Amino acid sequence: MSRTAFDFAPLLRPNLPPAAVRYSGFPAFNFVGGHNDAATTPVDGLIDAAASVLMREGATLATYGLNSGPLGYIGLRQFLAKKLHRQAGITCSTDEILITSGSNQGLDLINQVLVAPGDTILMEQASYGGAISRFTRHGANLVGVALDKEGLQPDALEAAISNLKANGVRPKYIYTIPTVQNPTGAIMGPQRRADILAIAANHAIPIVEDECYSDLLWTPERPKAMKAMTALGNVIFVGSFSKSIAPALRVGYVVADWSILSRMLACKTDAGTGALEQMVLAEFCEKHFDTHVGTLNKVLKRKLDVLVEALGEHFGTAAEFEVPKGGIFLWVKLPDCVDTQKLAQAALKAGIAFNPGPEWAIDKQWGRPRLRICFANPTETALRKGVATLAEVCHREMGVPARIGNVALS
Amino acid sequence: MSRTAFDFAPLLRPNLPPAAVRYSGFPAFNFVGGHNDAATTPVDGLIDAAASVLMREGATLATYGLNSGPLGYIGLRQFLAKKLHRQAGITCSTDEILITSGSNQGLDLINQVLVAPGDTILMEQASYGGAISRFTRHGANLVGVALDKEGLQPDALEAAISNLKANGVRPKYIYTIPTVQNPTGAIMGPQRRADILAIAANHAIPIVEDECYSDLLWTPERPKAMKAMTALGNVIFVGSFSKSIAPALRVGYVVADWSILSRMLACKTDAGTGALEQMVLAEFCEKHFDTHVGTLNKVLKRKLDVLVEALGEHFGTAAEFEVPKGGIFLWVKLPDCVDTQKLAQAALKAGIAFNPGPEWAIDKQWGRPRLRICFANPTETALRKGVATLAEVCHREMGVPARIGNVALS
Repeated sequence: MSRTAFDFAPLLRPNLPPAAVRYSGFPAFNFVGGHNDAATTPVDGLIDAAASVLMREGATLATYGLNSGPLGYIGLRQFLAKKLHRQAGITCSTDEILITSGSNQGLDLINQVLVAPGDTILMEQASYGGAISRFTRHGANLVGVALDKEGLQPDALEAAISNLKANGVRPKYIYTIPTVQNPTGAIMGPQRRADILAIAANHAIPIVEDECYSDLLWTPERPKAMKAMTALGNVIFVGSFSKSIAPALRVGYVVADWSILSRMLACKTDAGTGALEQMVLAEFCEKHFDTHVGTLNKVLKRKLDVLVEALGEHFGTAAEFEVPKGGIFLWVKLPDCVDTQKLAQAALKAGIAFNPGPEWAIDKQWGRPRLRICFANPTETALRKGVATLAEVCHREMGVPARIGNVALS
Repeated sequence: MSRTAFDFAPLLRPNLPPAAVRYSGFPAFNFVGGHNDAATTPVDGLIDAAASVLMREGATLATYGLNSGPLGYIGLRQFLAKKLHRQAGITCSTDEILITSGSNQGLDLINQVLVAPGDTILMEQASYGGAISRFTRHGANLVGVALDKEGLQPDALEAAISNLKANGVRPKYIYTIPTVQNPTGAIMGPQRRADILAIAANHAIPIVEDECYSDLLWTPERPKAMKAMTALGNVIFVGSFSKSIAPALRVGYVVADWSILSRMLACKTDAGTGALEQMVLAEFCEKHFDTHVGTLNKVLKRKLDVLVEALGEHFGTAAEFEVPKGGIFLWVKLPDCVDTQKLAQAALKAGIAFNPGPEWAIDKQWGRPRLRICFANPTETALRKGVATLAEVCHREMGVPARIGNVALS
């Protein structure tokens, strides 16, 4: 039947985001998003896990929530309780863990429970773009706090809170990414964590601790989670399997006291997070999590080395950055004359996608010459070639770098 | 570390739903919700499907959206395009199908795009409780329209629209469940569908056609979907794998013209629906969907027969109902003196859960003596024993039925 167009326009809700554009595949140089290394995907382990868990418990798929209730598959919560105790120092029961459809759903539930339009959230002045955009869409007022090599700065946090207090505002929470901060890669040390916990406790402000990247470390030791360092119960911990296992599996989690978790659970009206993904993850992780993450981190470290080398080769001193000790991204500052949003448009024509700084920054002007380069998904060849091409585009469009490959360009 | 309670209460957003209660397992007689028959869960087929699809495409899990883009796994959309054409008469491209995390996410996205607080939705006066509750929470004004053995009544729909028009209200859409209406089990015939489409077209109102149960039929033929009967593009079709395969797999779908689907997609900020569930479903359904659903329907039909027999035996003429030709639920009317919400509380103490009518009705008073009994999950023994026990509770609490098992009770 040939179609005549029904006009939905007069019926649309006001202030919608722009319509999605049709998907046309990934760019050749995909330096954007939380994609991971394809070759390291533990395919065989996932196949074995699927067979073993479905053989044992497959019939439970016939009931919503399996036999585990709305918090999520009990096997996965049991794995997490052990893992979080061992690796992050967190002591929690399985009833204090809520499995979510990706960590973003966790953030949405926190906002549904705590944040009304106009409420204030404190966060690092450079932070996860997906958090900035969804908090903004939720109607929150975002206040950026300065960060340094160890992440969120206590003095700046105290000052921001005092400033808000003087204006009669009590922030709803502090959103922080202490381990492998997104995008800076900063790792917050124990003393800094304690200082920030003290400030939050003093002002009775909750902390949302987003630890999505904390498994991807090549330092000897992961610092204790902030959640593990306080008995106050004001820390809501958010984690994910997207980075440690695979991003297309949409499984994250929230760890929090029942007093607040029960409010979030009441807002989780999706009839449960995908059960097969939860079951397969639990079965796989119970046996292979540490080994897999160890292998993955070696690959990531190697790719970061390649990226750093390529940036040095093609951008020289024009690209400034701290080399992170974990994660999947590098936060790069180009000379102030560079507008990375304009650069992103030009780069896309050359098949290169990256995150321009303003999308990852509260202060868009501060973010303007900055960009985030994700290095987990591209091959080493693509990393080298992509950076070389980006340097050419950047030179052509912005006059930076002045020299490419140690050869002065006209 | 022992816990001191942080007081979240002053920070909570106003008008939250009550806190969730701790899960304590399913009731002994679980006549509630969309659970399915556990023994029919196609465990072996799912294991084979997982192995085969992961072997072939497992490495794509490393990228968000696999290699399929944000509409969902292309293999599943291809299966659906063929299935919907064959069984529902719908002609659509894979770009007009959006895979969602359960059909409820589809409903949420429709509301995010079309419905602002105070906007009006027309729907059958008895309808899916999960739709009633989420539309209400979204701030919509729900107008119930009378239904009969064929579902939504065209005359009543026309009258409701005129009445709204007289008050300056253009409804945002008509929500209807034409095939195995939830909860009445009504199946709308082709002429009725055409009549309702004509009314909607005449008033330029979209239709949301929820076909979550339309695979579960024991009539010779599934009527063509309303979506297939118009070229106007005003029908948004919603479907699910929850009822045909397994409810714990959270995979639904929306079929709509790109003009409105692209707006919904822009609001889908969950970074994709669980990929493993999509991949395994596509692989399984491509080979086994029709066979599996055929087997399942035989089991469901048998369980319905048992339920109907048990109701006849224990409630006699006190329980009035139409025997549906498909689905997983029976909509029962008890004598007007019965308050099914009170009955539900008493029944729960005896281990019986059912959906009291007011939760499945726009007019709560009309719903008061009615209830929905889901029959897919309980065993035949549990169906018989549960109905017998319910009759005892109902007799004790409400004096209905007057006689049990053809024996007059004191």
